[in-house]
Amino acid sequence: MATSNERVFREVLGANCESVAAAQAAVRKYFTDDCVWQQSGLPTTTGPEEAVALLDGLVDSIGFAGLEVEYLHVASNDDVVFTERLDWMVGKDGKRLGPVVVVGVAEFRDEKICAWREYFDTSGFAHMLPS
Amino acid sequence: MATSNERVFREVLGANCESVAAAQAAVRKYFTDDCVWQQSGLPTTTGPEEAVALLDGLVDSIGFAGLEVEYLHVASNDDVVFTERLDWMVGKDGKRLGPVVVVGVAEFRDEKICAWREYFDTSGFAHMLPS
Repeated sequence: MATSNERVFREVLGANCESVAAAQAAVRKYFTDDCVWQQSGLPTTTGPEEAVALLDGLVDSIGFAGLEVEYLHVASNDDVVFTERLDWMVGKDGKRLGPVVVVGVAEFRDEKICAWREYFDTSGFAHMLPS
Repeated sequence: MATSNERVFREVLGANCESVAAAQAAVRKYFTDDCVWQQSGLPTTTGPEEAVALLDGLVDSIGFAGLEVEYLHVASNDDVVFTERLDWMVGKDGKRLGPVVVVGVAEFRDEKICAWREYFDTSGFAHMLPS
């Protein structure tokens, strides 16, 4: 059964699939002021505004327009939501890159995300999943 | 509250901390015949005997003697146990290498592990954790 933290996590990731503006609104709604967001190969951000700026930077640098996400597994305890996913990056031109296998670990405090680590092997390990 | 699958997972990893022989006994006890075990940078094994042979290979090639594990977060649903951990590799000479941050996704069937994926960035991302 999905917990409320799982629903929040899916809402934030769903916003990333919708548009960058929706992603930024979700970040402002659900990141705590001290939320540390770490993604392999990308700068670490602290707080919603740094995360919003990182998303703006991805739009400018690589034409980032959003994500496509396929959930493989989701599990949570009271404070943490784990997800194993296939993620594609979608560009402004509509082309998608990927998938990469991503394992996300999101820590929650009062139904907001207070830390979020996105693990993936920068050498790529989509090959690790059964075909 | 730890589920029985979580207890099995901790028992298998605990055996890896004890000795290679204990790890191999745990693999034979808890891997299903079709269990696919995938670890970034290592060969994929299918079934307990291939996993046992992989462990023997690590003893011969790199002097593997066991793991040291610090659990950061654990969560599970009915079929899957997620763990975020710091793992050290301990050599026959007692020296330890690491830590690397590992996120493990173990799928269960009838209280046995039927698939186990160990994700870590081969470029190393222990730096991703708060110091």
